[in-house]
Amino acid sequence: MTDRPGLFDPVLARGQARAAVADAAWIEALLEVESALAQAAADVGTLERADADAISDACRRPVDAEELGEEAAASGNPVVPLVTRLRAGLEGSAASGVHRGATSQDVVDTAAMLVARRAVAAITTDLREAADAAAGLAAAHRDRPAAGRTLLQQAAPITAGLRFAGWAGGLDDAAAALAAWRPAVQLGGAVGTLAAFDGHGRAVRAALARRLDLAEPTLAWHTERGRVAELAGLLGRAGAAVGSVSTDLVLLAQTEVGEVREDVPGRGGSSTLPHKRNPVAAVSARAAAIAVAGLVASVLTGASLHEHERAAGPWHAEWRPLTELLRTVGSGAAWLADALGHLVVDTDRVAAALDVTGGLLLAEQATTGLRARLGHAAAKDLVTTAAGAAQDEGRPFADVLAEALGDPDEARALLDPAAAVGEAAALVDDFLESRTRKDRP
Amino acid sequence: MTDRPGLFDPVLARGQARAAVADAAWIEALLEVESALAQAAADVGTLERADADAISDACRRPVDAEELGEEAAASGNPVVPLVTRLRAGLEGSAASGVHRGATSQDVVDTAAMLVARRAVAAITTDLREAADAAAGLAAAHRDRPAAGRTLLQQAAPITAGLRFAGWAGGLDDAAAALAAWRPAVQLGGAVGTLAAFDGHGRAVRAALARRLDLAEPTLAWHTERGRVAELAGLLGRAGAAVGSVSTDLVLLAQTEVGEVREDVPGRGGSSTLPHKRNPVAAVSARAAAIAVAGLVASVLTGASLHEHERAAGPWHAEWRPLTELLRTVGSGAAWLADALGHLVVDTDRVAAALDVTGGLLLAEQATTGLRARLGHAAAKDLVTTAAGAAQDEGRPFADVLAEALGDPDEARALLDPAAAVGEAAALVDDFLESRTRKDRP
Amino acid sequence: MTDRPGLFDPVLARGQARAAVADAAWIEALLEVESALAQAAADVGTLERADADAISDACRRPVDAEELGEEAAASGNPVVPLVTRLRAGLEGSAASGVHRGATSQDVVDTAAMLVARRAVAAITTDLREAADAAAGLAAAHRDRPAAGRTLLQQAAPITAGLRFAGWAGGLDDAAAALAAWRPAVQLGGAVGTLAAFDGHGRAVRAALARRLDLAEPTLAWHTERGRVAELAGLLGRAGAAVGSVSTDLVLLAQTEVGEVREDVPGRGGSSTLPHKRNPVAAVSARAAAIAVAGLVASVLTGASLHEHERAAGPWHAEWRPLTELLRTVGSGAAWLADALGHLVVDTDRVAAALDVTGGLLLAEQATTGLRARLGHAAAKDLVTTAAGAAQDEGRPFADVLAEALGDPDEARALLDPAAAVGEAAALVDDFLESRTRKDRP
Amino acid sequence: MTDRPGLFDPVLARGQARAAVADAAWIEALLEVESALAQAAADVGTLERADADAISDACRRPVDAEELGEEAAASGNPVVPLVTRLRAGLEGSAASGVHRGATSQDVVDTAAMLVARRAVAAITTDLREAADAAAGLAAAHRDRPAAGRTLLQQAAPITAGLRFAGWAGGLDDAAAALAAWRPAVQLGGAVGTLAAFDGHGRAVRAALARRLDLAEPTLAWHTERGRVAELAGLLGRAGAAVGSVSTDLVLLAQTEVGEVREDVPGRGGSSTLPHKRNPVAAVSARAAAIAVAGLVASVLTGASLHEHERAAGPWHAEWRPLTELLRTVGSGAAWLADALGHLVVDTDRVAAALDVTGGLLLAEQATTGLRARLGHAAAKDLVTTAAGAAQDEGRPFADVLAEALGDPDEARALLDPAAAVGEAAALVDDFLESRTRKDRP
Repeated sequence: MTDRPGLFDPVLARGQARAAVADAAWIEALLEVESALAQAAADVGTLERADADAISDACRRPVDAEELGEEAAASGNPVVPLVTRLRAGLEGSAASGVHRGATSQDVVDTAAMLVARRAVAAITTDLREAADAAAGLAAAHRDRPAAGRTLLQQAAPITAGLRFAGWAGGLDDAAAALAAWRPAVQLGGAVGTLAAFDGHGRAVRAALARRLDLAEPTLAWHTERGRVAELAGLLGRAGAAVGSVSTDLVLLAQTEVGEVREDVPGRGGSSTLPHKRNPVAAVSARAAAIAVAGLVASVLTGASLHEHERAAGPWHAEWRPLTELLRTVGSGAAWLADALGHLVVDTDRVAAALDVTGGLLLAEQATTGLRARLGHAAAKDLVTTAAGAAQDEGRPFADVLAEALGDPDEARALLDPAAAVGEAAALVDDFLESRTRKDRP
Repeated sequence: MTDRPGLFDPVLARGQARAAVADAAWIEALLEVESALAQAAADVGTLERADADAISDACRRPVDAEELGEEAAASGNPVVPLVTRLRAGLEGSAASGVHRGATSQDVVDTAAMLVARRAVAAITTDLREAADAAAGLAAAHRDRPAAGRTLLQQAAPITAGLRFAGWAGGLDDAAAALAAWRPAVQLGGAVGTLAAFDGHGRAVRAALARRLDLAEPTLAWHTERGRVAELAGLLGRAGAAVGSVSTDLVLLAQTEVGEVREDVPGRGGSSTLPHKRNPVAAVSARAAAIAVAGLVASVLTGASLHEHERAAGPWHAEWRPLTELLRTVGSGAAWLADALGHLVVDTDRVAAALDVTGGLLLAEQATTGLRARLGHAAAKDLVTTAAGAAQDEGRPFADVLAEALGDPDEARALLDPAAAVGEAAALVDDFLESRTRKDRP
Repeated sequence: MTDRPGLFDPVLARGQARAAVADAAWIEALLEVESALAQAAADVGTLERADADAISDACRRPVDAEELGEEAAASGNPVVPLVTRLRAGLEGSAASGVHRGATSQDVVDTAAMLVARRAVAAITTDLREAADAAAGLAAAHRDRPAAGRTLLQQAAPITAGLRFAGWAGGLDDAAAALAAWRPAVQLGGAVGTLAAFDGHGRAVRAALARRLDLAEPTLAWHTERGRVAELAGLLGRAGAAVGSVSTDLVLLAQTEVGEVREDVPGRGGSSTLPHKRNPVAAVSARAAAIAVAGLVASVLTGASLHEHERAAGPWHAEWRPLTELLRTVGSGAAWLADALGHLVVDTDRVAAALDVTGGLLLAEQATTGLRARLGHAAAKDLVTTAAGAAQDEGRPFADVLAEALGDPDEARALLDPAAAVGEAAALVDDFLESRTRKDRP
Repeated sequence: MTDRPGLFDPVLARGQARAAVADAAWIEALLEVESALAQAAADVGTLERADADAISDACRRPVDAEELGEEAAASGNPVVPLVTRLRAGLEGSAASGVHRGATSQDVVDTAAMLVARRAVAAITTDLREAADAAAGLAAAHRDRPAAGRTLLQQAAPITAGLRFAGWAGGLDDAAAALAAWRPAVQLGGAVGTLAAFDGHGRAVRAALARRLDLAEPTLAWHTERGRVAELAGLLGRAGAAVGSVSTDLVLLAQTEVGEVREDVPGRGGSSTLPHKRNPVAAVSARAAAIAVAGLVASVLTGASLHEHERAAGPWHAEWRPLTELLRTVGSGAAWLADALGHLVVDTDRVAAALDVTGGLLLAEQATTGLRARLGHAAAKDLVTTAAGAAQDEGRPFADVLAEALGDPDEARALLDPAAAVGEAAALVDDFLESRTRKDRP
């Protein structure tokens, strides 16, 4: 019943999404729906505008959130006591116009869409901020050779720019998918027939959708939870994007790798462990991402079980997991934006990583380079032999190769990582160029 | 390594999706990618067309699936032995042109997209068949009053048509979302730089995408699994749609309700239990739906953990859960299409259900109907008193109400369910009309 | 930072588990650990008892929970500001004795065990209360014939007692499994070596375990989360037990079945829908159960990813899902105890259900009963023919069978449900007797 | 219907568990149950022993697995055609004695327990083999200083032995928990009343349990799936243990860390990337672990939804996820045993890691060491200043500290990692000693 952070919220519920899904935000959304419902009725002429305005006024009065929470205990539903309160503050036709024709689920579902829309907007903003930061890094390090790693083994050179572009791309796409999500109004009455609207139900529904800027569905979706499942899927995708990038961050920040660090004064350091620079933001983003898949499963499970006209459990089962899913993905996105916004690339360590294998990282390129002169088989043979000798004797591959070729310059050229990054620069350019073309509201 | 149904497949892996994701289909897709890759190289001029054609010919030769499976054990990857086999059947520049520039993951990921596209097509077809059947029922029973139920309690009348329209709508939307999924080609080489394509990598990628009719991504997505997460989310939504409708079916088919049954000669009956008509198809659809959320979680978990340029576990972790997810959702969709295609609506039982409460189901409507004449308070009082008496005395509410009103005809009119279904007919019409406007390829 | 119920808590976070996992309970547990750690150091002689007592006194002073929450934002860990606060209130050797040798995770993990133990105790109590209620119903309805249902179709008679015994058994076993869970102390210092305890680490650990009545592990389990995974599994089992029983309850409470209802004055009724008796408690229990599997998956995912000596994300990822899992299972158990404690068995409806099929439910028993006199084939033939005629002609099977046999008395005897319940009574007796033998602390 | 490995099985379904859960193993188990059921009937005297023996003989005849699979399509249940086949091969009282009194679910559930028991045994064996290998490493490297890492940052020294002991401990506990799992027989007849056993049902059940060495439950558990949920939880825990250890392995095997490698000739190497030593076994173990949590969720979801006497979907929903869960955990355990069995510890790299920070890893120990001589504040001040200088000037901390102290010997002693590992050796000894005390059947 409060927006003040709970004990674990600073780590696990960072960002604007937490406030967007807090109890206070829910109550505000419920009141917004009741207000809009009255105005929609006035729009179609089934309620006097003056009554609608009185209802809207009542919906602007503060509701004591704790009291409402306790009243909800009796009915299991915050709409019931909320309507009672609204009616108590009104008279006559205004009082009886409150909530007219609607069922509690109409109001809760529509409010959930408003709540989710705000949380999704916060998440999308943070994902885009993270993506922008990564794209900036991609541009800045467009041509910087770096060690590419597969199965956590150094494999072949890439550019740092290509790595960062990959992060940006995943975050961009996750944000775009979320931004395209279109929430809808819910209005069906007790069993979806709009029976209590005296024939004006669809008209009220259209007006309500217009007022709340929500899509208008053809039918009530009290037990057809495709929209909710869709949102869960999109949040699952966003969580995966956050998880994958933050995993890269904690790996690159390892003491033994050290290619990146988060530079936030006063965070992540330790007076007793002066060498330690904990990537706090990336760790926290990762912590959020880890919880996401299970929360998606909880929401999908509920969505697959709705019965008849309104469900016996699956509907209620949606509230907490969906709220927690929005909050958790929001926390991950906010932490990731923080991590990428404060990321320092240690260019010395990036360069040093290319030397860890003593040049073996370039062995494939050396083979390719020698192929024209020696033929494929001889080239491969020479390189493989040199590589084996380097490993057996514990010497730099570059030295052994130079000896084998009798030409240190040729060896050096063959082992130039900048020559081994293929079309990395063009790929980064293509990516950055594609970003400028995208409409982003 | 076989398409023959396994022990539990008839129940749990029905439909075309199973064959679409079978080992044989995977091998076919892998060969299709290798063939198209060679042709794409020829398209951009880095391989002779004759060599490409020889490779494509080799890709059409049958591969002994079991042997390949066993060879894959050594490398952990079916592409490695497949390429060895292809090269062994070719000579010179054709042999060396096989798989040129690509990494195993390029081929597996692109093949996975082809496999998924076929499975998704099968699922979409079955979802639409199910939706069409439900829409047909909606039209046929547009005006038939039926008991609406909330929290598994009878609540107020609906029409059977509105219920069926709700099913069709959910299935339509799930199918449309899946049909809009757009798979992409994967081509990046060992670390995503296209380094082994001599500068022609992006051109080959474009040609490959064109040949396979797949989207061309800007960057390799070896560790950016947004596409996979997106697919998992869409399948999760489809599973939820299947689950919700099949849950309704088994509930409506209950002995005590009996509003629907599946009419497939020789199925679901029992010689020893002659009254039993097991809704086998709906039960099986439901069994599929129950497993879906967990499988989505498995795929999302993997997607959120990919490291660096290619992942140390999360990639391999994708194959079985994604395959099983496609197969399971496919089974659910196929069974649901079967269930709805053979559904018999027992109109007598539908009508009888409206009488189960002795008219109490219409109490709210009676109150509304009396309001104009008696005023709200008096109307509610009269109805509540009559309802209480009916329950206490175990008599039909209709009789008690008739007595209270002194007018059986008025009571009958007040309790006419057909008058209590609000805008149900118009909602069904709107829905059916909206279906005709949708482009469906 | 509050125990006051949130907006959805009355429905989704009922019972004592919510308070047991609330922020205030966490803070209390953290203080309890710091206090016991100081006393344990005094036990082994590495801290003066007077200093330990001063620390324990400090740990009894109230901590402003909101302030602590906000301070935790800086370090991402409530232990850091808590230790700062404790030290600030002490002097000299007492101040430096606070938290000596421990790492934050030692305190959080040990506190988590205390928190979980209290929540588990609450859950276990509620599960047992539910089981006791079900066992009471089993005894009360030991011999009452009822319709047994398979695939939601009436199949053959059972006794109501056997059904209730089945519920009690599942709840008993889930409670017993949870009650056997044995939490452990965590103490390892920064990397599990107990390096900052000057050689007394294991002795302090033993004393700490003794003081907190926790098991003492051989090694630190900072990244070996078997205990946490085990707890998640046990809670998953408890959730499944709650889900299965509450599903039966909502099905039996259906308007068309009506064999049970929850009798809580002022709950579940409706003035506008007088016939409706929503099984609010069972619905809420079910809502909790639906979310459980996903939460278990979240906890297990984290548990499977812990790296090295302390993890970069997976540990933090545990807090919210584990807390939510305890709260949710607790809510389900509390609601189920409420539902079963207020359950009214409508014996008329139980009896009436046996007649829904006009006797066909007993067809198998009739065949068996006639076998001795007519032989298997003839018996089956007679019954099958009669059953078919009954269905075709819409007549009660009992009447048709009586005609076919020419003996209404024989027909009645053959179709007596009480004779068709096999060993149900003995099974119930065995079960109730087995309950009395179990030690329950 | 085959045990030959499928395309992805070599990577994702390694080990004996795959064969234990293959279709052939299921059929064998089904036949074993039917045979034991007949013998149990003979044990209690309701079937002639000669008939039972004839049935047992029939159960030993090979069943064409593919044909059975196809026949199962009609009934959705392999038991129905299996019983038909068995009866067809017998005559008279033997034929009618087949499957007497049982329902299909009795046989499938009991067979599932046999299948699971064999798979669990395979998993347990592999977990123990992995644990033994880790324990061997713990003994071998008991006193070897190594870098301890928290949040993927070097934090303080540990011993390699302590790390390996931690792995062994987690695997031991997961194995012990699985080994303690006790499967039970299922026998209840159509609705759990044992009605078709003529009063001898409980006696037959006892005899059946004795013959199959399964626990005998008090009641049928057709819809009380606590046992299944319990197994899923235990497998989830085992998967978490596999995941955590294999994650450590891939991290320690990183090119930049290189403390361990898998030494299996012909595996994990690359002719084109000679420096690459992919930890294939650890990667594959990790791939298995990643899928586990979702599969547990699928099984738990089903377990929480069983209705009435036998369920309409949730039961069927159990087969594939449970089978896949056993197979997947089995694969992870087998790969991990392989990885640990072939693990080579690169002691040079282990030692070298301690120098990566130039001695900063020991800064905390240096402070502690100086405290006695200088007092806490001065010690901390001196060390912090020296550490800052070392980082700012890019010099080894050891050198800076030596200068600050004016005593290289004192600096060397203060920075000796072997002196900084606390009670690591004693912890390893305690652990290894505790292993010898455990009974392991």
